[in-house]
Amino acid sequence: MAEKVTIADVARYANVSRQTVSNVLNSPEVVREETRRRVREAVRVLGYRASQAARQMRTGRSRLIAARIEPAQQDGINGSVFDRFLHGLTESAARAGYRVLLYTADDHDAELATFDDLLGVYVPDAFVLTSTDYGDPRAAWLLEQRIPFVTFGRPWGVPPDQKYPWVDVDGAAGTATATRHLLAAGHRRIAFLGWPEGSGVGDDRRSGWARTLAEAGIGPDELSELDHRTEDGVPEGAAAVTALLAAGRPVTAVVCVSDSLAIGALQAGGDVAVIGFDDTPVARAVGLTSVSQPLGEAAARCVALLTDMLDGDAARRRSHGDAAPPDDDTGAPANTSVNQGAGARGPSRTTTSGDSPAHVLLEPTLVHRRSA
Amino acid sequence: MAEKVTIADVARYANVSRQTVSNVLNSPEVVREETRRRVREAVRVLGYRASQAARQMRTGRSRLIAARIEPAQQDGINGSVFDRFLHGLTESAARAGYRVLLYTADDHDAELATFDDLLGVYVPDAFVLTSTDYGDPRAAWLLEQRIPFVTFGRPWGVPPDQKYPWVDVDGAAGTATATRHLLAAGHRRIAFLGWPEGSGVGDDRRSGWARTLAEAGIGPDELSELDHRTEDGVPEGAAAVTALLAAGRPVTAVVCVSDSLAIGALQAGGDVAVIGFDDTPVARAVGLTSVSQPLGEAAARCVALLTDMLDGDAARRRSHGDAAPPDDDTGAPANTSVNQGAGARGPSRTTTSGDSPAHVLLEPTLVHRRSA
Repeated sequence: MAEKVTIADVARYANVSRQTVSNVLNSPEVVREETRRRVREAVRVLGYRASQAARQMRTGRSRLIAARIEPAQQDGINGSVFDRFLHGLTESAARAGYRVLLYTADDHDAELATFDDLLGVYVPDAFVLTSTDYGDPRAAWLLEQRIPFVTFGRPWGVPPDQKYPWVDVDGAAGTATATRHLLAAGHRRIAFLGWPEGSGVGDDRRSGWARTLAEAGIGPDELSELDHRTEDGVPEGAAAVTALLAAGRPVTAVVCVSDSLAIGALQAGGDVAVIGFDDTPVARAVGLTSVSQPLGEAAARCVALLTDMLDGDAARRRSHGDAAPPDDDTGAPANTSVNQGAGARGPSRTTTSGDSPAHVLLEPTLVHRRSA
Repeated sequence: MAEKVTIADVARYANVSRQTVSNVLNSPEVVREETRRRVREAVRVLGYRASQAARQMRTGRSRLIAARIEPAQQDGINGSVFDRFLHGLTESAARAGYRVLLYTADDHDAELATFDDLLGVYVPDAFVLTSTDYGDPRAAWLLEQRIPFVTFGRPWGVPPDQKYPWVDVDGAAGTATATRHLLAAGHRRIAFLGWPEGSGVGDDRRSGWARTLAEAGIGPDELSELDHRTEDGVPEGAAAVTALLAAGRPVTAVVCVSDSLAIGALQAGGDVAVIGFDDTPVARAVGLTSVSQPLGEAAARCVALLTDMLDGDAARRRSHGDAAPPDDDTGAPANTSVNQGAGARGPSRTTTSGDSPAHVLLEPTLVHRRSA
């Protein structure tokens, strides 16, 4: 094996000081471009490749946050939500001095195996988990291994002794806003097109619609009649609305748990107001009114919770000070206020009490288009 | 500063051998789960975090491939292409023993600054560049610094002395197939809805339409009359088709450079056959016939070209043998054959000659739906 190339070798070859080599490797912006080029050239020619390793040896930190890129979905309509979240995560992490390490996995078992591999080879400082659901083993695994992490998505059905920080969007608040909008426009027969019971996200979104109609005086029997459940998808949405229109007392409006189902609802024809969920590119393309999640802010909050854990209070002050979360691409204003304490009101709620991990619940907004 | 924690300390604490600790850190799959957990616990408690650093020190390699996640686009319709490419890249890289390190940048200057930062801190082994265009300074910068990279996208307008490996999809072949499909259905007045001249990708897609119509006997004057140029976007597509329909000799079909413009073309109403480009989720949702890029395969080819450079011939044999590229999510079969030499025919062409870097040009497929 060849002898180890040192910073001194690189400095000699490039005819600069060792400090300059170190600067090029660690703070290139302070070095003139021509010098930087010469040092890089020396690094390549001599095969010196250990600056990150040296840094990690020194700090015991990789400055990597691992996150999953979701497998492509069948119709891909709702998948854009995670891609937008991942984009926000990449931006916010960079601002806090971290980079995102991507992985993919088709199911929970494959994901746990990937955790093992990542921890062995890349030693990420933390994980961001998405798509939490009932029976999800990932958080328990990471807790047991004492790896810092945050979830984008509430802990659905998790035992009370499993405590960890999370960020989520209040889906029930979104469907409640959608339902109030339809009531204000004079609708009374407002159906909900949701997923089969048992999905945390889906049941939460259904609850906002149900609560709002109940407050408006709709009785339990009528509510149950208006509550339609189906698998996700455009054809499924069309079939469901066709059935609702053929029923005895027709509906005049539909709140949908996803844009996929809402696009199907629009394609069923009929004079029905339709509101979707997630404000996907498809919604924008076809003029669908839809509930928009503040994904850029959700990502920024995930990074802030992680840097609290990894870098402590100084990082928190820094991050809350200058890391204004990027605006979502809908033109809707991001919700940026931070409220401490469970009783706080406002567009977002951050709960921190005693030794419990922090939680952030963000409010979505309704983006008005011509479908409702 | 606390004394450095060693593998021996971890082994003692977990009551296992040093080899077992090393296995847990480097090949966790060979260690029983209970032992793995005990070692991980010891790693956490003692604060041992240097396995990747140690490995990188030893091998001089980070096993990271850096790639950009594209900024969110205005309407987001066409953006899904890069998200699908990134997903394929993550899968193919993992199969080859690499992980994807994400970054983002709003323009070329910001991207070059980010290269500097990534090379200083994370030392990625290679870069994958996307969205190549005329006047793109990124390839020249990386060539000068001798950093291995591959581009997804041809070198548009690059001086002949800048040689590097690339993968691209033959856009002209895609629009030629679309145009032939419309000719076979009896159309003669087939317009092209393209971007303003000067975009490499856009001009390439226009050329396939123009060539096919010329071969069918359409003269240059009529071609020029059928060639419509506009900025990208749904309203722009609707306005363009409205204008084309109001003109003296109406068109009966439109080939579009993007799904955004095609969706607009559909919304203009009128009895016009429409074909889009990129087979986005929006196309699937509204029944738009569209040209589909084999993105999973493009990503796999990028990784294969990089591993050729990074790991040599052994890796090439391994990679071409078992890394079957993932199928695209359209249900269309991926083009998997590899043809060496410029004169080869078939669904994809790989060119390697002498000391020139390899190039791969893949054929897209037409996904038929009800719009044409």
